[in-house]
Amino acid sequence: MVDIATRVYNHKWKIDPIVRSLIDTDFYKLLMCQSVFRNKRDTNVTFSLINRSKDIRLADLIDEGELREQLDHIRSLSLSRGESTFLRGNTFYGKRQMFRPEFMEWFEGFRMPDYHLEKRDGQYELTFEGKWPEVMLWEIPALSVLMELRSRAVLKDMGRFELQVLYARAMTRLWEKVERLQHLDGLRLADFGTRRRHSFMWQDWCVQAMMEGLGDKFIGTSNCLIAMRREVEAIGTNAHELPMVYSALADDDASLKRAPYDVLADWHEEHEGNLRIILPDTYGTDGFLTNAPDWLAGWTGIRIDSGDPAEGAERAIAWWMSRGEDPRDKLVIFSDGLDVGKIEELQSQFAGRVKVSFGWGTLLTNDFRGLVPDNGLAPFSLVCKAVSANGRPTVKLSDNPRKAMGPALEIERYKRVFNVGAQRELEVVV
Amino acid sequence: MVDIATRVYNHKWKIDPIVRSLIDTDFYKLLMCQSVFRNKRDTNVTFSLINRSKDIRLADLIDEGELREQLDHIRSLSLSRGESTFLRGNTFYGKRQMFRPEFMEWFEGFRMPDYHLEKRDGQYELTFEGKWPEVMLWEIPALSVLMELRSRAVLKDMGRFELQVLYARAMTRLWEKVERLQHLDGLRLADFGTRRRHSFMWQDWCVQAMMEGLGDKFIGTSNCLIAMRREVEAIGTNAHELPMVYSALADDDASLKRAPYDVLADWHEEHEGNLRIILPDTYGTDGFLTNAPDWLAGWTGIRIDSGDPAEGAERAIAWWMSRGEDPRDKLVIFSDGLDVGKIEELQSQFAGRVKVSFGWGTLLTNDFRGLVPDNGLAPFSLVCKAVSANGRPTVKLSDNPRKAMGPALEIERYKRVFNVGAQRELEVVV
Repeated sequence: MVDIATRVYNHKWKIDPIVRSLIDTDFYKLLMCQSVFRNKRDTNVTFSLINRSKDIRLADLIDEGELREQLDHIRSLSLSRGESTFLRGNTFYGKRQMFRPEFMEWFEGFRMPDYHLEKRDGQYELTFEGKWPEVMLWEIPALSVLMELRSRAVLKDMGRFELQVLYARAMTRLWEKVERLQHLDGLRLADFGTRRRHSFMWQDWCVQAMMEGLGDKFIGTSNCLIAMRREVEAIGTNAHELPMVYSALADDDASLKRAPYDVLADWHEEHEGNLRIILPDTYGTDGFLTNAPDWLAGWTGIRIDSGDPAEGAERAIAWWMSRGEDPRDKLVIFSDGLDVGKIEELQSQFAGRVKVSFGWGTLLTNDFRGLVPDNGLAPFSLVCKAVSANGRPTVKLSDNPRKAMGPALEIERYKRVFNVGAQRELEVVV
Repeated sequence: MVDIATRVYNHKWKIDPIVRSLIDTDFYKLLMCQSVFRNKRDTNVTFSLINRSKDIRLADLIDEGELREQLDHIRSLSLSRGESTFLRGNTFYGKRQMFRPEFMEWFEGFRMPDYHLEKRDGQYELTFEGKWPEVMLWEIPALSVLMELRSRAVLKDMGRFELQVLYARAMTRLWEKVERLQHLDGLRLADFGTRRRHSFMWQDWCVQAMMEGLGDKFIGTSNCLIAMRREVEAIGTNAHELPMVYSALADDDASLKRAPYDVLADWHEEHEGNLRIILPDTYGTDGFLTNAPDWLAGWTGIRIDSGDPAEGAERAIAWWMSRGEDPRDKLVIFSDGLDVGKIEELQSQFAGRVKVSFGWGTLLTNDFRGLVPDNGLAPFSLVCKAVSANGRPTVKLSDNPRKAMGPALEIERYKRVFNVGAQRELEVVV
């Protein structure tokens, strides 16, 4: 029996929107947004899309009109009553009223600011300029729209059964990963795959599969909307954009050197417990830890997001010990380019020595490698970054020079200020 | 949006019926039924279920009450108006009115006769006694009900995602087979998988997958209901039950020796063209062909259903040549224990020398090998055979002694009458 109402309802859409909610975004974006809203709300920031996989010619694959329709649709969104109730009333990290009334009032009236879109050399130049707390909310939906439009472009010529088999294969692959992870004692794993997901529906399926397959080993998702709908924890801490913008705003080398710690001082005032997670690699982990104030050693943990993850964790352990902290009380969150093999390896290397958890991203929600001819659905390295603040360029060094960004002269300056020596290049998979 | 009507409709069923139509059966059963209705309608025949895979203890796996409900439901079925219109009006093998008005009138008033069910040694003894044209129609639904109840018994404790992944794996496996078969030039392949299918829905999916994936290489299905619904050809010829019952009715060795040819003489009167397919192995292919009357060599083809298939085809080719026929005009239908590897092999060995086609059965519609723990969904060798006619036991020798059946003394007598010498034992997979 056909449900006529549903079919008619579906046909009413002019487009099939990819992002249908302002909270279909990473939870930490909202946390950071609140922090920025409180501390730096008038800063002018530009976010820009950067496709590190030049061979994926997005502007040839994706129709500009379709992309504009999707972005325009996002601009039409506002927080729904239920979403607002959830953000205001839910317990996040064991704390009620994580989002304060003043922020919620602002967010309830919020609409996404305008965007600027051009084609150049087979790529899209997509930028967002404006007040930091507004433009920063473009990052995740812009990425997930582009990722899903690319998926749709590849899928659109496939037959009904080819599609069914494609998803059958992807499901089989994911479930085999889940079955391997079931064997890992003490595993704590979250979905961090919103930004480079194959599609919204697929991410939602992945989360449900992990809920069923991993039970308590699955600790939640970074996606705020899915966390709400599936009633799992919303997971997230903070990202590079905070030190990058704070640093760009620094007037001289001395304040630049201080900027990454100023970020965390602001954060320290707002958050406690499991939200006090250091992200040390923006300008090189070694220098960051060496020069860190003592109160930072009291934080709950560290997130390792570039460089060799085992080296990064060993460095953190050594640093905690040098500051008189017991690493066994500390949390290490691995979140860079994970897949099952790497998770198994890191879990066996560090379980017992520190508390370990994993933020599994692209190879959870977008592992379609090899599933269509020419590998046309393989994930690729698309990012959307704050590139300037109040007219000054931002810089990121990272622990992997291939992830560095910013003008060459500024990079040199930052390397000097932050005492960054030789770095090892690692392939950026996703 | 939930379709409330559909959900309420589904909840109204006391059971979830497996066989929902009298034409959810092999097309050749209906062809043979018409022939039997015309030539032997008053013969009393007993059909009996035989599980050749003794390690599958069906009576332990399947609840007797559920089995009775399913069988009782089948007894409540009658031919629908649309089904009757289809059988009366459709073109089968290029011929209209394949089913004659007299037969159709009988079939429209037909209800399935009673059954007899007992448990013994972990197995079900399920028998059907009555007039041949009536009880013969139990064979296929009895088998498909037992196969699907066994599937359901194994599936019932699985979670929602485990189930989704199970079918994802099965779909992936089937599609990989389809992709291999796409490369076979001149392939002609039909679905013969009704009797030992995993489930009705799965068979229906397999047929649709082959329609999409194989195009003209897929020539149709033996399942009459699916052929009607999916608008593909209904495929089928004739089966061992005809010579087995005719032979059991023979009063002496001389008429026994003649019986397999009497069957085909009756068939010859009713059918032409692609329905004139010899099934030579009931009492040994060698003797059958050696003693065959010349008019049989004029038939369109032969179906190889036991023994080594390549040997069987070579024997047929040699026989046609010995009778002055050109094998290139003849059709060889392979239908025993096929899977992709064997299909590729036989196609490459015989394409060009004869016309080749394949009736792909259990490993098309029930290849769930290895997909659940303990291999609990692997297909097994369940048959439902005519075991006696007018009080006399039937006998089948086959080209593989492991497929032989009947009382030992009768087997000896048949071997003598039909001059069957040493036979090679081959494993019966499905």
